[in-house]
Amino acid sequence: MATPAELLEDTREQGLKELDDFLRIPSISSQPDHAEDVRRAAAHLAERYERVGLENAEVIETGGHPAVYADWLKAPGKPTVLVYGHYDVQPVDPLELWKSPPFEPIQHDGQLLARGSSDDKGQIAIHWQAIDAWLKATGELPLNLKVIAEGEEEISSVHFDEFVKANTERLRTDYCVISDTSMVAKGFPAITYGLRGLIYFEVRVEASRVDMHSGLMGGVAPNPAQALAEILMRLKDPAGHVLVPGFYDAVRPLGEEERRQYARVPFDEAAIKATYGLSALHGEPGFSPTEREWARPTLDVNGIWGGYQGPGSKTIIPAWAAAKISCRLVPDQEPDEMMDAVKDYIETVAPKTVRVSVTELSQGEPWITPMDHPLIRAAHRSLTRTYGKEPALIRSGGSIPAVEVMGRRLNAPCLLVGFVLPDSFAHAPNERLDLDSFYAGRRAAADLWEEIAALQA
Amino acid sequence: MATPAELLEDTREQGLKELDDFLRIPSISSQPDHAEDVRRAAAHLAERYERVGLENAEVIETGGHPAVYADWLKAPGKPTVLVYGHYDVQPVDPLELWKSPPFEPIQHDGQLLARGSSDDKGQIAIHWQAIDAWLKATGELPLNLKVIAEGEEEISSVHFDEFVKANTERLRTDYCVISDTSMVAKGFPAITYGLRGLIYFEVRVEASRVDMHSGLMGGVAPNPAQALAEILMRLKDPAGHVLVPGFYDAVRPLGEEERRQYARVPFDEAAIKATYGLSALHGEPGFSPTEREWARPTLDVNGIWGGYQGPGSKTIIPAWAAAKISCRLVPDQEPDEMMDAVKDYIETVAPKTVRVSVTELSQGEPWITPMDHPLIRAAHRSLTRTYGKEPALIRSGGSIPAVEVMGRRLNAPCLLVGFVLPDSFAHAPNERLDLDSFYAGRRAAADLWEEIAALQA
Repeated sequence: MATPAELLEDTREQGLKELDDFLRIPSISSQPDHAEDVRRAAAHLAERYERVGLENAEVIETGGHPAVYADWLKAPGKPTVLVYGHYDVQPVDPLELWKSPPFEPIQHDGQLLARGSSDDKGQIAIHWQAIDAWLKATGELPLNLKVIAEGEEEISSVHFDEFVKANTERLRTDYCVISDTSMVAKGFPAITYGLRGLIYFEVRVEASRVDMHSGLMGGVAPNPAQALAEILMRLKDPAGHVLVPGFYDAVRPLGEEERRQYARVPFDEAAIKATYGLSALHGEPGFSPTEREWARPTLDVNGIWGGYQGPGSKTIIPAWAAAKISCRLVPDQEPDEMMDAVKDYIETVAPKTVRVSVTELSQGEPWITPMDHPLIRAAHRSLTRTYGKEPALIRSGGSIPAVEVMGRRLNAPCLLVGFVLPDSFAHAPNERLDLDSFYAGRRAAADLWEEIAALQA
Repeated sequence: MATPAELLEDTREQGLKELDDFLRIPSISSQPDHAEDVRRAAAHLAERYERVGLENAEVIETGGHPAVYADWLKAPGKPTVLVYGHYDVQPVDPLELWKSPPFEPIQHDGQLLARGSSDDKGQIAIHWQAIDAWLKATGELPLNLKVIAEGEEEISSVHFDEFVKANTERLRTDYCVISDTSMVAKGFPAITYGLRGLIYFEVRVEASRVDMHSGLMGGVAPNPAQALAEILMRLKDPAGHVLVPGFYDAVRPLGEEERRQYARVPFDEAAIKATYGLSALHGEPGFSPTEREWARPTLDVNGIWGGYQGPGSKTIIPAWAAAKISCRLVPDQEPDEMMDAVKDYIETVAPKTVRVSVTELSQGEPWITPMDHPLIRAAHRSLTRTYGKEPALIRSGGSIPAVEVMGRRLNAPCLLVGFVLPDSFAHAPNERLDLDSFYAGRRAAADLWEEIAALQA
């Protein structure tokens, strides 16, 4: 009898065909025109889960696009793992930049070109095909498995928290596995073990009730835009160091092993500058760009406005000016504490000639699974075996709402492991999936379950 | 035979009736609906000038609303004076705040309530009635006189420069008298002998071609809004002192007599704070608010914008940020030199991580007629005689385009003298004209000509 791995070698073409069917459904979650397509993709996926042998497959309603659930719970005494992915995709414009229609997958130069091929339908397919191979080869899985596919990841997972809260019992798990990240490079796997958190707030500086004539009041009245600039310069120095007292106190220092791991990941400064059209990088002194992105908190203006923005000249002193500002947080910074620290500090340093208010808009906890957690170690062993190369242990500077929600609602450690390449043009024209990586990913996903099965339930 | 002053005492009612007729024409220059009313007011005024005995009365076309011209040039060997006013008015909204319809003048508590009653139809009427009294009483004027009434003052005198350029010969004069300013208080006349100039420019700070994800690029990419804040703080210190090298070099220091004059003008800090809802005043240390407004240059942000301004949170680092900034200039600062100094300085101090451009949008020369100029002295003697109180010699922090245009195109010294009160609600609901001040103004305007007639032609 063939092993799952052997079966996967023999079913490449079929696997690609299954993915092709899935990619043809334009499940763009942000465009109301495609709401029915999103539903069609959910139904298609539920049917696929049934076909591979999962049970209780169901399209579950949320306040928005539905989620798809299925499970296989026949391994008593073994741990349960919840596998997360999302079946919705980004819009496709500008369409004219695509080499082929985004929902008619084609193979080109070892790549499969289609919207969703890497983000994230390809990774969902990798998991169902690994499960399929297990069930076909052995008639069972080595652990209890639940899959959940979200339909709103590309629209900020707006209903996911509510959905998980309403389905806590059904989703209860020992471990979560999220496949929505990427590898370091072809053949070089990665485990993402940390994400940054966030506080996001608005600072409003008011000088007067009405805009003032800059001739009559210039030199007499305070200028709220200038006062706002002063506040911004007091929040962060020109080198990029945040000046809020206590801001860095709870930051978990980078360990030697973390620095060693990060140094393994190539950082191509020239490529990043070219991608964005940047003249230079900038950030807190004493840390590499990678360390700054993954393991250091930040403070950034997200928007600023006040006074006259139209063409030509209008000679006013604005009545008020405002800025949206956010801090990316890292373990063990607490969003509430950081928000209080920032608020207190702004109140202390703001010029006394103006009235300043600070309004919190949103927040999220930073997330980390320690590098030496058994779940991470298990994945590390498995990936090393599959790829013949130790995975990089990395973090990401952003947040993934689903990770935060699952960690909090289900109180389970999360493993972020992805099987696609970083240059897969997710969200951009000509999104692609490297086929070698797709096939390797199927093997890696199949291999993972035995290692996790050996962990504590 | 009666003197002009005696005649004016006997014609108060008629003078008020003439003004009433003029005020009933809603000559709102900014509203296309009222274009015909503006024309009607011009024709009405030209006819009035003819009736009082001026000659060559003419409605002269400009690129926009017409100007009205008339003259009396029968005093050979005597100087020529050009008297400027504007017959257009501000819009009237919010209409519901008016105690009576804005174009149906009523008397209330010694005030005439109507749009334009003080700004500036009342002052135009003061002059034609003084001229009328002279011609009726003596059959002549003591000097050569030209009147010009503009129809676009409330829309920034958009065609006035072009108009004066095209009519330089017709408008040629030895002196200009502009009556569009106000007194210090009832019975306390003022001569405005200086106005501030201006440079107005836009600073654009670009970090990248596109907005960046604040999670992935926060701590890695420069933030253009933060860089802009840094530039603003380098332009002006928190106390209000402009830091551009050489900025104050050409500033004409305030003389003892100027400081003495300014100190005569009451400055009601509490009232100004209440009017605008300011918590505090703010400006360059070492100068009183009045000195700062009239005789010191400034640098103010007029508008600022960049990144996300909508509701809620958007986690981007903006691609760029921009600000409109202007400097009010005082004698003897040169706009071109100041613009160069600001531009050079910004290029020097701007963070090297971003790309910065500075674009000039507009400029205007500061204007001053020395306090001891014969024209000012003549007006000073005349006003002291009429009001029994020495006029205050003041400046204004704003600019009056017509003054700058006439000074430059006609190369003639300007006298700014107004006969209305500062609390006449110009541009606001319930604009009013203090009737005592109106009658006193007619006497003052009539008295002025003999003093100016004695000056060099």
